[in-house]
Amino acid sequence: MKPSPASAPSSSPAASLSPEQALARVRIVLSHPSHPGNIGAAARAMKTMGIAELVLVQPKRFPDDEATARAAGADDILAGAKICATLDEALGGAVFAVAVTARRRNLGPAPLAAREAVPQLLAAAADGPVAFVFGNETAGLANDEVQRCQCCLHIPSVPEFQSLNLGAAVQLVCYELRLAAFSGEPPVASPVVPFASAPATIEENEGFFAHLERVMIDTGFHDPRQPKRLLPKLRRLFGRAGLERDEINILRGILDAVERRIAR
Amino acid sequence: MKPSPASAPSSSPAASLSPEQALARVRIVLSHPSHPGNIGAAARAMKTMGIAELVLVQPKRFPDDEATARAAGADDILAGAKICATLDEALGGAVFAVAVTARRRNLGPAPLAAREAVPQLLAAAADGPVAFVFGNETAGLANDEVQRCQCCLHIPSVPEFQSLNLGAAVQLVCYELRLAAFSGEPPVASPVVPFASAPATIEENEGFFAHLERVMIDTGFHDPRQPKRLLPKLRRLFGRAGLERDEINILRGILDAVERRIAR
Repeated sequence: MKPSPASAPSSSPAASLSPEQALARVRIVLSHPSHPGNIGAAARAMKTMGIAELVLVQPKRFPDDEATARAAGADDILAGAKICATLDEALGGAVFAVAVTARRRNLGPAPLAAREAVPQLLAAAADGPVAFVFGNETAGLANDEVQRCQCCLHIPSVPEFQSLNLGAAVQLVCYELRLAAFSGEPPVASPVVPFASAPATIEENEGFFAHLERVMIDTGFHDPRQPKRLLPKLRRLFGRAGLERDEINILRGILDAVERRIAR
Repeated sequence: MKPSPASAPSSSPAASLSPEQALARVRIVLSHPSHPGNIGAAARAMKTMGIAELVLVQPKRFPDDEATARAAGADDILAGAKICATLDEALGGAVFAVAVTARRRNLGPAPLAAREAVPQLLAAAADGPVAFVFGNETAGLANDEVQRCQCCLHIPSVPEFQSLNLGAAVQLVCYELRLAAFSGEPPVASPVVPFASAPATIEENEGFFAHLERVMIDTGFHDPRQPKRLLPKLRRLFGRAGLERDEINILRGILDAVERRIAR
């Protein structure tokens, strides 16, 4: 079977979906999860990345206090989780299903690395829900479960130790989905503050360097007859920092205090 | 404020490090982790991505069966974990420290998104260990812990629900590091002049700040009873510069000269 993104619906309709809408069409399916803690961890992971649809195929124990504890506030995700008897039922209505698996399967599609595949998989969301299917913690997905999917996704890891925790794997896939949805520019919680105060003018910088030079001479650190590139080095240091007005005031205040102390 | 990786060492020395060697220089520091399960999860996450150096600052409970259980086979990582009393101790020998934080800090460096920053941060591994510092599960990193770091890393997430599980956050950062190390594309060369001398270690930076503080107190410029954010502002200034060993020597030489002059 060819890797599924090559046969995924064209990406152009997806351009009309906002990032949030695209993520809203992602369905996380956990097939036969053993540990309720991992279900909670998956819910938390989903919520941090703006993904909400959780479906569980024959969870061993759910609902469970451990799931609630590990969800750490993602109770809405747990509350909305659908419980199904079969994977077919869990994939109902989805237009595309992706098996997340470490192991290669003889008759399965070649697994694609998460980062490369996710943008194309997300494009499929233009046509409807796209499901990402995770298997049991120990056994992974059964072969027939993988066959039910159009594509295999692989999280690159150390070949000798590939087994990520289920909640961690869900976190990674949701993270890749979020970054793909926002094209590498997801919204940040607050605007970045470029400067705390205005950048210093050239005159202010020069005033500082002159003041610094005077103090270095007065304290005997700098001998103008043997400059040894001291001032160029200091200019380079402070040039890298890009001094702000407020910072020049602080540095010159220190120099003033030194001069007053010396003059006593 | 320019992001700190702009002052990271040029990427060319890093080209001589294999991906495995670069990852071997990554140090994961967990500061005051409350839950041993998260320590285990972090160890497992590290091992899947080929990272092995784990350091714990005052873990609430460790060693612990819960850590072992959640490590799911990453026992070697747990066994090799170093336990420290302070963050300073945990950062000993590292050339660069990165604070992983969701919250903006007023005087901390502007947080960089993980994917963009990691390749340049990994380039710093050419000079020695690069530490990634994660805070307590509930409180995150204390402000003074963030100040100890040269850079802030941010995992993009939903603004209203930013709190990733600690083990999941470690998994994401280690995943980004692994992908960057194996990308085959060298980290983007910084537009800033590369280091002329070796970057100062964290201990050297801290020695300078302590020395500067003493001189500011001795000259009457700084009153520790009314700190007025003076030291955080100075840390931010010099953090932007990314001090080199040679520059620390110059600055401390100036401070020595001031102290000698005062003492006359």
